[in-house]
Amino acid sequence: MFDYKLLSALAAVVEQAGFERAALVLGLSQSAVSQRIKLLEARVGQPVLVRATPPQPTDLGRRLLNHVQQVRLLERDLQGQVPALDEGGQPERLRVAINADSLATWWAPAVADFCAGHRVLLDHVVEDQDVGLKRMRAGEVAACVCAAERPVAGARSVALGAMRYRAVASPAFIARHFPSGVTPAALAHSPAIVFGPDDFLQHRYLESLGVAGGFAYHLCPSSEGFVHLTSGGFGWGLVPELQVAGELARGELVELLPERPVDVPLYWHHWRNGGELLGELTRQLVRAAEELLVR
Amino acid sequence: MFDYKLLSALAAVVEQAGFERAALVLGLSQSAVSQRIKLLEARVGQPVLVRATPPQPTDLGRRLLNHVQQVRLLERDLQGQVPALDEGGQPERLRVAINADSLATWWAPAVADFCAGHRVLLDHVVEDQDVGLKRMRAGEVAACVCAAERPVAGARSVALGAMRYRAVASPAFIARHFPSGVTPAALAHSPAIVFGPDDFLQHRYLESLGVAGGFAYHLCPSSEGFVHLTSGGFGWGLVPELQVAGELARGELVELLPERPVDVPLYWHHWRNGGELLGELTRQLVRAAEELLVR
Repeated sequence: MFDYKLLSALAAVVEQAGFERAALVLGLSQSAVSQRIKLLEARVGQPVLVRATPPQPTDLGRRLLNHVQQVRLLERDLQGQVPALDEGGQPERLRVAINADSLATWWAPAVADFCAGHRVLLDHVVEDQDVGLKRMRAGEVAACVCAAERPVAGARSVALGAMRYRAVASPAFIARHFPSGVTPAALAHSPAIVFGPDDFLQHRYLESLGVAGGFAYHLCPSSEGFVHLTSGGFGWGLVPELQVAGELARGELVELLPERPVDVPLYWHHWRNGGELLGELTRQLVRAAEELLVR
Repeated sequence: MFDYKLLSALAAVVEQAGFERAALVLGLSQSAVSQRIKLLEARVGQPVLVRATPPQPTDLGRRLLNHVQQVRLLERDLQGQVPALDEGGQPERLRVAINADSLATWWAPAVADFCAGHRVLLDHVVEDQDVGLKRMRAGEVAACVCAAERPVAGARSVALGAMRYRAVASPAFIARHFPSGVTPAALAHSPAIVFGPDDFLQHRYLESLGVAGGFAYHLCPSSEGFVHLTSGGFGWGLVPELQVAGELARGELVELLPERPVDVPLYWHHWRNGGELLGELTRQLVRAAEELLVR
């Protein structure tokens, strides 16, 4: 079996963001922690940490960390059955890849009770809904919210529902760019806002309207920034209905083509052997998503 | 001099997110675009693009792109003086590294008029306030909003003011974790929320209260998600005053130690040879920051 003393040292250094704090938490000297990391690297034959401030795990380091977290979840189930094993309990860490728009809207209300009730700490890794699954495949996260249905090996996927996006812009932007109404051609010639290089929502929207070719766009990899840029009149963009209900009601944002929302389906992927805790989280998420997402 | 036909092909492929769209924009065949990229790579002796979908610039590719954008800004100044040079004008792209909290709060209102008035498209690169300057040093962005004052070679820095952060939590969280009042020791034993591995605001805050050692925290690399997690009762955290005025007024968030805000100074770094456009943006930013930030 793996040497979990070494793996725990790695987890402590990353979670505590430094050797000094890790040593405090582990009750060891700093040089003992350092020795354990070096020994681990000698065993696996590769660096597991980049010695920056704070230390960052390498790709291999991240996989080992995720394994440690998975083992801890399984230990937690066992502690429930064999209370004597319980060592006084650090809270669990759960690494979850999630798209920024979910994190900016329905995620926190959906999992709040679960996290408070089970003393779980979340490590969110923000990934576009089309690429989050890569993190799962690489073994870097325990679970993932993304738009792909097909689970990776060793995992299960559950349909949560869809996020509904609406194409919106500010009244001033509409007056400036669409004086004779919103047409596909006029849309293609006015600046858009795109979340990042992996975001093709706007591209696909224009394609669905029969517009081909490039278009001008601002790049804004921040959900809240995205909404600020649309209401500030920088461009038009597709935003989650959940996020701009207030702006739409107050008329700060106006829908461009009300009959054409875009629904992005979301799936919850989680390890098949994630333990009871991950199972309980899955059940709670599915219940909450029924209210918060579109079916 | 560089061959700008080749560099423009690189810029088009990245900006249009593909060879096909780049070819459309440049009025070339796709294979001609591909040839230009190969020729550029032969000249610089390294790949400039990762052939993914969409194509991503390599580190060297990003530096070349930034150079193209810098040259375009200078050309724009010249066109103003020699109108015959104007070729009908694509909008300019400006790559800016910025911390997520600025993008989520004061940035859009501060630059909205400028962008609409000058037909500028912004490429935002989100970086923690402590590390954005690295992008500037690497030549990947034309300007940067960050917490470091000292400019890199070839750039200028201007003080904008400070963002004021307040330590907040939800009333339910406070009732659960601080039944006998908010003390530094109680804070250290309740879960915090931390933006990412480069975010030490919470660490420094606890240190300033005389608390040493590690503490439990959720990681949430999203400004809006951060606020949702605090109001959802996941933990306490330092949030920009600008972002939670409504939540504080409505009592959804409560300040923990009202007499202890944290001010993070922000500086605007820009190329010294960025042309008139960058100078005009700088003047507008400084004016807007006077109203939006703390002095």
